[in-house]
Amino acid sequence: MSRFFSDKYRALTPYTPGEQPQDKRYIKLNTNESPFPPSEKAVALAAEAAARLQLYPDPQSAELTAKVAAMCGVSPDEVLLTNGSDDILNFAFMAFCDDAHPAAFPDITYGFYSVFAACNRVPYTEIPLGDDLTVNVDDYLGIGKTIFLANPNAPTGIVLPRDTIERIVQSNPDSVVVVDEAYVDFGGESCVPLIHKYDNLLVTQTFSKSRSMAGARLGFGVGCAALIQDLNTLKYATNPYNINRMTAAAGLGVLADEEYTRQNCQAVMDNRAYTMRELRRLGFAMTDSAANFVFAKHEAVDGAVLYRELKDRGILVRHFDAPRLAAYNRITIGSREEMEQFVRTVETILEEYTR
Amino acid sequence: MSRFFSDKYRALTPYTPGEQPQDKRYIKLNTNESPFPPSEKAVALAAEAAARLQLYPDPQSAELTAKVAAMCGVSPDEVLLTNGSDDILNFAFMAFCDDAHPAAFPDITYGFYSVFAACNRVPYTEIPLGDDLTVNVDDYLGIGKTIFLANPNAPTGIVLPRDTIERIVQSNPDSVVVVDEAYVDFGGESCVPLIHKYDNLLVTQTFSKSRSMAGARLGFGVGCAALIQDLNTLKYATNPYNINRMTAAAGLGVLADEEYTRQNCQAVMDNRAYTMRELRRLGFAMTDSAANFVFAKHEAVDGAVLYRELKDRGILVRHFDAPRLAAYNRITIGSREEMEQFVRTVETILEEYTR
Repeated sequence: MSRFFSDKYRALTPYTPGEQPQDKRYIKLNTNESPFPPSEKAVALAAEAAARLQLYPDPQSAELTAKVAAMCGVSPDEVLLTNGSDDILNFAFMAFCDDAHPAAFPDITYGFYSVFAACNRVPYTEIPLGDDLTVNVDDYLGIGKTIFLANPNAPTGIVLPRDTIERIVQSNPDSVVVVDEAYVDFGGESCVPLIHKYDNLLVTQTFSKSRSMAGARLGFGVGCAALIQDLNTLKYATNPYNINRMTAAAGLGVLADEEYTRQNCQAVMDNRAYTMRELRRLGFAMTDSAANFVFAKHEAVDGAVLYRELKDRGILVRHFDAPRLAAYNRITIGSREEMEQFVRTVETILEEYTR
Repeated sequence: MSRFFSDKYRALTPYTPGEQPQDKRYIKLNTNESPFPPSEKAVALAAEAAARLQLYPDPQSAELTAKVAAMCGVSPDEVLLTNGSDDILNFAFMAFCDDAHPAAFPDITYGFYSVFAACNRVPYTEIPLGDDLTVNVDDYLGIGKTIFLANPNAPTGIVLPRDTIERIVQSNPDSVVVVDEAYVDFGGESCVPLIHKYDNLLVTQTFSKSRSMAGARLGFGVGCAALIQDLNTLKYATNPYNINRMTAAAGLGVLADEEYTRQNCQAVMDNRAYTMRELRRLGFAMTDSAANFVFAKHEAVDGAVLYRELKDRGILVRHFDAPRLAAYNRITIGSREEMEQFVRTVETILEEYTR
């Protein structure tokens, strides 16, 4: 830290992204990426866009915004594209939280929420999940705070039905509720249709997971035009060109190939069912995941130990140190071949620890 | 604006990027883009990277950071890559400005500085340029504020020599001085070599102009390791994956092709000399530009009028409404053909206004 760093940020602990070791080739089941390559149409349009990089991108990303709006069944002024969904989540913490509007989110959820809150110096409450790691809906009714809910939640994968989220939105009419749907395409029910009913609902999604574009950085928010306008004000006050030409082009490509996305999501859901079945057979306990990962623990092997043993054998999963999470690992659902190798490897490790 | 927008931002006026009209094909001399396509190596590597978009980028961009550091003659921990240089300028306003460390910059400079300051709710002083639109160095000596200097300045293109900047840095040892070198490759003298001498100097640059990558969004900052660490903390507290895979790959490509960059910069400087000579012949007054644009006014035609007449004829330049700038237009230096057509068109317009 330099002697010039503002007091505002001296205590800030930044987010730790999942590790991306370069030392050898791993089976990467640690950062919830898609095991499938991006759509060929996305690759082709991105490559074409690369030849025109001397020109700034359209700061409004008008063409892609219109397509995303059409996909969501909303109008373009109800959509804001951002540099991944982290970008729009940060804008939401900036726009809709302050001393008079503290944030609230589960104690176990996407680890970035508390960092966004700290970075924006916003007071926040972490509402404990139940012992079964589910959200207790009553804890969120009429609390008058800016609520952030990942749905499905991370790292549990547990999903709330839309009508439950609607109760939360409805009971906090003077606070914004942000529903982070990064994983919605693997079995969740999107709250996007509710944005025409509630002016206090912002839904965020990403092209990173279901659309195989984690490396392109494309996320978006959907909400009433006034909310989107606020977020746009912050975009134009920080980094108006946050989406580059190639990413915008890739986004157009993948949206022209929705059948490919659908098939990939189905494959992930099938592989998730396979993985959960096999892990259950091996004695693992798991949350009921509707996401592209499972969250699993085993009585015979500590979470950190299993993480290490897997890494030694060339398989990366994500382990969290927090007390209530330490027994678990979050395992991204990869291709069938990857999951078969994962299951075989886990079986070998378990044999060592249970004999 | 929604009823939920935080009081912090309700008075915020965002930055207005240069217009990007889609209605017809213009000769674009309005946003300081390069007239030359990106390096073929950049295009090829970006296209290759597009095929692996399902994976997150390396959040450290380690390979590209090492190359940029080598180019600058510094070590990798003295460099931070960002999503365009707007991103690092915003981080610098966040990190190094607060109520106790107000910002200071010229009244006529990159228009985003005052927006960054307002967005971060940082007090700032705009120090008037002289009547000839030059920086009066004495105004910056020992002022104990966080200073932002675009060098060359925008929209004037006027450059300060390195030893003048050094005096400013030296005389404000307890404040950070940010030197924004977006246009340095067209005739300026970089302050990067000074970062090993002063722990309070941050230099920012961009791949947008001289490297034909405005559409890719790649900028960077160079400073002592402690300053860079502070900026990194903010990156990891807002958007760790701010540089996508394709942009990082394009950056590696263009850095492997420095001769192409050098030739393009030379061509821009030659075309600038041509344009200034011709405009002078037509009776324009201009600042002494070391950037990829000229800033020109003519007694016979108001700046706004010339802007409009040019636009009607398919040529876009940038006009600023501010009182001291309204007589001028900022004209990006394009290809020789573009500048010849520009000169011919200006000549035709002047004939109408001077007969």
